[in-house]
Amino acid sequence: MDAAEFRRRGKEMVDYVADYLENIEQRPVYPDLEPGYLRSLIPTEAPLEPESYEEIMHDVERVIMPGITHWHSPNFFAYFPAASSYPAMLADMLCGAIGCIGFSWAASPACTELETVMLDWLGKMLHLPESFIAGTHGHGGGVIQGTASEATLISLLAARCKAIRRVLATDPKTSEADILSKLVAYTSEQAHSSVERAALIGAIMMRKVPTDEDYSVREEMLRKMVEEDKAAGLIPFYFCATLGTTPSCAFDRIMELGPLCNKENMWMHIDAAYAGSAFICPEFRPLLNGIEYADSFNFNPHKWLLVNFDCSAMWVKERTDIIGAFKMEPLYLKHENQESDHFISPLGRRFRSLKLWFVFRMYGLKGLQAHIRKQVALAKEFESLVRADKRFEICAEVVLGLVCFRLKGSNDLNQTLLKRITKSRELHLVPCQLSGRFVLRFAICARTTESRHIQQAWRHITQLAFELLQEQPH
Amino acid sequence: MDAAEFRRRGKEMVDYVADYLENIEQRPVYPDLEPGYLRSLIPTEAPLEPESYEEIMHDVERVIMPGITHWHSPNFFAYFPAASSYPAMLADMLCGAIGCIGFSWAASPACTELETVMLDWLGKMLHLPESFIAGTHGHGGGVIQGTASEATLISLLAARCKAIRRVLATDPKTSEADILSKLVAYTSEQAHSSVERAALIGAIMMRKVPTDEDYSVREEMLRKMVEEDKAAGLIPFYFCATLGTTPSCAFDRIMELGPLCNKENMWMHIDAAYAGSAFICPEFRPLLNGIEYADSFNFNPHKWLLVNFDCSAMWVKERTDIIGAFKMEPLYLKHENQESDHFISPLGRRFRSLKLWFVFRMYGLKGLQAHIRKQVALAKEFESLVRADKRFEICAEVVLGLVCFRLKGSNDLNQTLLKRITKSRELHLVPCQLSGRFVLRFAICARTTESRHIQQAWRHITQLAFELLQEQPH
Repeated sequence: MDAAEFRRRGKEMVDYVADYLENIEQRPVYPDLEPGYLRSLIPTEAPLEPESYEEIMHDVERVIMPGITHWHSPNFFAYFPAASSYPAMLADMLCGAIGCIGFSWAASPACTELETVMLDWLGKMLHLPESFIAGTHGHGGGVIQGTASEATLISLLAARCKAIRRVLATDPKTSEADILSKLVAYTSEQAHSSVERAALIGAIMMRKVPTDEDYSVREEMLRKMVEEDKAAGLIPFYFCATLGTTPSCAFDRIMELGPLCNKENMWMHIDAAYAGSAFICPEFRPLLNGIEYADSFNFNPHKWLLVNFDCSAMWVKERTDIIGAFKMEPLYLKHENQESDHFISPLGRRFRSLKLWFVFRMYGLKGLQAHIRKQVALAKEFESLVRADKRFEICAEVVLGLVCFRLKGSNDLNQTLLKRITKSRELHLVPCQLSGRFVLRFAICARTTESRHIQQAWRHITQLAFELLQEQPH
Repeated sequence: MDAAEFRRRGKEMVDYVADYLENIEQRPVYPDLEPGYLRSLIPTEAPLEPESYEEIMHDVERVIMPGITHWHSPNFFAYFPAASSYPAMLADMLCGAIGCIGFSWAASPACTELETVMLDWLGKMLHLPESFIAGTHGHGGGVIQGTASEATLISLLAARCKAIRRVLATDPKTSEADILSKLVAYTSEQAHSSVERAALIGAIMMRKVPTDEDYSVREEMLRKMVEEDKAAGLIPFYFCATLGTTPSCAFDRIMELGPLCNKENMWMHIDAAYAGSAFICPEFRPLLNGIEYADSFNFNPHKWLLVNFDCSAMWVKERTDIIGAFKMEPLYLKHENQESDHFISPLGRRFRSLKLWFVFRMYGLKGLQAHIRKQVALAKEFESLVRADKRFEICAEVVLGLVCFRLKGSNDLNQTLLKRITKSRELHLVPCQLSGRFVLRFAICARTTESRHIQQAWRHITQLAFELLQEQPH
């Protein structure tokens, strides 16, 4: 395919994309097929000779689309949102064409520099403390990661390195292996599974901290565990707080937890993967109070800030903490402006900050705030519908765009309800477990979800619930 | 921006991309600016109100393009190639529109399934042993990672988990921490820095194995180290072999090393990040002989197989080795077809296999082979030019698309030559160090590099060398 054909096919693809997104509501939101469906639809080997582009696009509808869970359908309410916007898609096209691999400043100065400045812009939108802003002289700053999982892992490894050095400095006779075996990290029992996995990767013992009735970690719970562990000769060194947990969008009490972590020399990382985007609105910014105690902070613009995956924003107070934990300097990566490299290099990385730049400028801060506010309002609308129906209950405070609810009754009953919702393919939800109860999560996801979709979803859920309850023995 | 505006702007972007790539040769390949250049060119904060699209595209030329190292310029010979092709860019547009996050089968069955089948296609193109092919009943299979660094880390962690379990099974009284402190991993002194970093992340001791005069690890070198370490009470458990090292594209002798690793119960991972693409040509496939001894294998289609970054292909013989090392199962990720999840989940991931599908079909195996062969021929052409000039020497065997060369003389002399090449901005190279000598790496990178660019580059290098040598005292 030469440039001339790309001009033609590219424009057709732009129309295909626009058609897909404009008509997505007509597709069943969740696919109806059995595992292994795809293999039998295509050959077992790659073709020897080139095929025509028409054949491929024909197969997109024949092979791919039937197997898609349509995350951008206004009837998709599962997991958390995956951000999507036209400006981000345009920026991604440009990113693909430039096709630089931004592992160092020299590998494309614009890639490293725009990223630093965009993370400053975003940090200011969130009113992060000055210490997280790179500016021209700051010690802190932001960097784009692929996922919140990566950010958590990096913070844990930086904390591990710092803790080992600190202990070695006071007790040079001890071995690194011995220190490693005594380090303890903590996170909420409600934290995302990736936090536990980060500890597994880093060969670190991780303790789950119990939560209060709002599913939040409080200071006394963490303090108790830390004191016990210290008494047992262990070395608490890291706490990953969550703002907006995956099951119920609960918020750990970082205003209380921060001072404890600082006092105990424990790195506090804040994972606000989903909720972080909301902090650009002044009315939600208080949820981030306590950030001043944190060593690192992360959230995913690719969840709720209209920037297509992947774009996870991470800030640290001390860039040197990260550099110290990862520095490698082979000659083929050396260049004259080494000090300008991004502080997490060398890693292959695309020019992802272009997406932030396009989205921030095409929406403006006000446009992005309007998006957040609209989606929170839709969640509140759904909450009201649930609360008005005595057969149902709300299972956790609705703070942002997630509503946790269930039928009053057994877990089995709710499990059956969810199965029927999934089977109907008119909307898509996933469950969670809260205090041993099977709960349905209703997350406002697609950019194009409107009030009518909420009303329609509720009618559908109540209809299925009605039928289900009719079948129950009284 | 609504769908109608996206249709218009998207088509303009397609033309911008085609114009950029068609005229890339007219831009200086390496930017001429000082670190920090970008910050002063744009505002210090995001705009409150939306800006116009024209302003943004104007700024792409004003702010971004002057700071780009043009990886797809035919005058770019640095690092290794970053793959780029029009079919891959079209697939990326579709991937962005679908915008699913493929962390489980249920999150989009097509995303998981196409990936498995495309890695089978690719594995067959490489003639990987049957044990690496998933098929419908195999224990092995392939998965797409972001980078070779990730693949190395995952293989190391899987090997670590397996080794700890094995030792615990024979000696249940020992502690995991104690085993961890005794595990030893090995890799070539010529291996990529990411291998050493994987060990750092995994809290694993890693030894660098010395290489022979061809910069290859041989069996006796590794065996000697393994025996010494075993005698010292350590537990050798992992060897990362490199096929096509970053400095000089050297090949470790896996035919000899494989049996040793198997005998010693050491996981053998093969990192063929760059060279792997060449193995689709029968004449280069013998370089992969010995793969049958490996536990895992990885290479980057996003380097040399015309698939835009990121797309790193990894295969393992036993999927359960990976699953066992990472499994986490929160309720919000459970669904009815759990066993169909990809074997490295849950991780946020884009629908990257679409790029493989488009590229394989639009080029056909023959088209891809032609691309590899053309680039190897260009490297051979450059090698001949160097060999014909007595002032220069070739520093490592030219096997694929990389030529390592230098002026006969001091490291300082060669360093000055490279500085002048960089400063001229007519072509871009990076150096490496081989046996203590400063060496210039000339890698055939852009898809559009032709013989005339090679000839032109050599004329330019020899002109600068001529001037430099004139200045030297005789």
